[in-house]
Amino acid sequence: MATVPALAAAAPGAELEPTSIRLRPVGDHDVLIQIAYVGICHSDIHQVREEWGAASFPMVPGHEIAGVVTQAGSGVKRFSVGDRVGVGCFVDSCRSCVHCRRGEEQFCEQGMTSTYNAVGRDGLPNYGGYSTHIVVDENYVLAIPDSLALDEAAPLLCAGITMYAPLVRWGAGPGTRVAVVGLGGLGHLGVKFARAMGAEVTVLSRGSRKQRGALRLGADHFRATEKPAVFEELSGAFDLVLSTVSASLELDSYLGLLTVGGTLVHVGVPPGPSSLSVAALVDGRKNLSGSFIGGTGETQAMLDFCAVHGIGAEVEVIDAKQANDAYARVVDGDVRYRFVIDVTTLGRADS
Amino acid sequence: MATVPALAAAAPGAELEPTSIRLRPVGDHDVLIQIAYVGICHSDIHQVREEWGAASFPMVPGHEIAGVVTQAGSGVKRFSVGDRVGVGCFVDSCRSCVHCRRGEEQFCEQGMTSTYNAVGRDGLPNYGGYSTHIVVDENYVLAIPDSLALDEAAPLLCAGITMYAPLVRWGAGPGTRVAVVGLGGLGHLGVKFARAMGAEVTVLSRGSRKQRGALRLGADHFRATEKPAVFEELSGAFDLVLSTVSASLELDSYLGLLTVGGTLVHVGVPPGPSSLSVAALVDGRKNLSGSFIGGTGETQAMLDFCAVHGIGAEVEVIDAKQANDAYARVVDGDVRYRFVIDVTTLGRADS
Repeated sequence: MATVPALAAAAPGAELEPTSIRLRPVGDHDVLIQIAYVGICHSDIHQVREEWGAASFPMVPGHEIAGVVTQAGSGVKRFSVGDRVGVGCFVDSCRSCVHCRRGEEQFCEQGMTSTYNAVGRDGLPNYGGYSTHIVVDENYVLAIPDSLALDEAAPLLCAGITMYAPLVRWGAGPGTRVAVVGLGGLGHLGVKFARAMGAEVTVLSRGSRKQRGALRLGADHFRATEKPAVFEELSGAFDLVLSTVSASLELDSYLGLLTVGGTLVHVGVPPGPSSLSVAALVDGRKNLSGSFIGGTGETQAMLDFCAVHGIGAEVEVIDAKQANDAYARVVDGDVRYRFVIDVTTLGRADS
Repeated sequence: MATVPALAAAAPGAELEPTSIRLRPVGDHDVLIQIAYVGICHSDIHQVREEWGAASFPMVPGHEIAGVVTQAGSGVKRFSVGDRVGVGCFVDSCRSCVHCRRGEEQFCEQGMTSTYNAVGRDGLPNYGGYSTHIVVDENYVLAIPDSLALDEAAPLLCAGITMYAPLVRWGAGPGTRVAVVGLGGLGHLGVKFARAMGAEVTVLSRGSRKQRGALRLGADHFRATEKPAVFEELSGAFDLVLSTVSASLELDSYLGLLTVGGTLVHVGVPPGPSSLSVAALVDGRKNLSGSFIGGTGETQAMLDFCAVHGIGAEVEVIDAKQANDAYARVVDGDVRYRFVIDVTTLGRADS
């Protein structure tokens, strides 16, 4: 079974079309995963549309992958056939640099091997999770606990770890006040995590449209930032602000929301330069920070945390043929909160 | 003895002139300190010249104060006559807000009471250390260990804690690589501290003029930043970069010097807005941070650290009548590394 159904864009900006791809052989340390669900991440759209620099086509996107192991190489130690597993944003790295050794493979000095739109160590272009199967080295595969539904688990592999890592790093927990800016695929998981960690959670969104959803997800408070008085009223109100939006923030205004020693973390990346007053950092020894997904160890810890706290993504499960419409809706912000493709709708690998 | 000699500026930008000031009565919880030495901090000059907003005149600057207790109020518990003590940037705070209770009085919600150019809790303007004596509540007085010379200790009360606090907070120690940007009153103490903490220390300075001094102070490396290739050569080279300069840095370039998870801390405040790419923070989960002096607890810890490691400021001791010339030299960057006024040259309080 070397050839399997997939959804691919043939060229930059092209629609996703059904196609078939060749899988690489299952090596000694690889597992073959039958994919059940794959999340649609906004970064899929950016890459398909070649908005992040030159990309490789045909492109099969997808790095929020959940499925089941159907074959394991002879040297595989951590997984067996039937295990429920996930794959996130990368499938390989050098394994020897200081960052790999510290378990932060996403910062590999040689560059992580992205799950798609990249070239594998075998020299061949690789393909992501909009397909029925994928072959991945077991060291880059995560175990999905039994209590997590696979559709709700898929988005955890990128959106989930993106939010979980900075919340842990900056000490979200009982007695801390966390704000999440933006309530989409990332933000809604940030609310669930921060709440489960014991923090007091506020959602900051431009308008009031998402208020009900925020409170339903467990946020303690919701504030619409289109009212400028909000920044005065919330002056010094947060220990940690996580910005999931890719619009440029008025940094000085957002830094003003932080208490002494507080941190504003960007996980969304606005284009172009941003402006800030360094005095806004010195007054109150504040931090402006960034965060980028997470390593395999902390991704596994996140999945285990989700199992303990019963956390999954809020998903809208779609058929493969709805993927192009879903892209348009993601761009319009019309999704609550993550589209997940039911990969079985791609057809059978052996058909 | 209510009236003592001092150096004061009568109006914004005026020369410092000998004068006399009335001390407040020594209250139950106050100590009277006979000042031996007072450091000249660049912020003294900014305030005398009213460059930081409306100021109070006549102004007696000075918040790097070292001396000896000559009288203690009846309720004073921590100090006795003859004790060697210091006073830094503040002499009071509300004592009840969350920041005061955490020992970060410099961030008091009601505002710390600055050592000079401020109004005390008695409603009267207060005066700093360019005088022979000062009356301070014992809770805002630090003990200067016997092994530290008072002239070398005075600058520790502001410049010292300004550098020590972020080095501790961001984990400078064995195995970490620290860069200090700028080698003046602040920077030279940063080098000494970071070295004593066990870090590998690099001084970054515009030209090569300060290379010999940097190495003599204990820096492991010196690099002149006027050569643009330096930023490529030192890409990812540091865990922590402390900027002591008040010029605007090219933030993206300096963030490029950080390794994964590294931090660029400003203790100097450039005027106006600075520009950065948020992507430079997200790639490598880096931090841009600020720091502002320190609380009484960490200031005492810094003084004790200095005693253990034999650290004092490098000072040029001057007479009171040289203070105006010293101001001009500080503005020109012509001091290695801190001017300290020998306060006995102001004359005797009882003369």
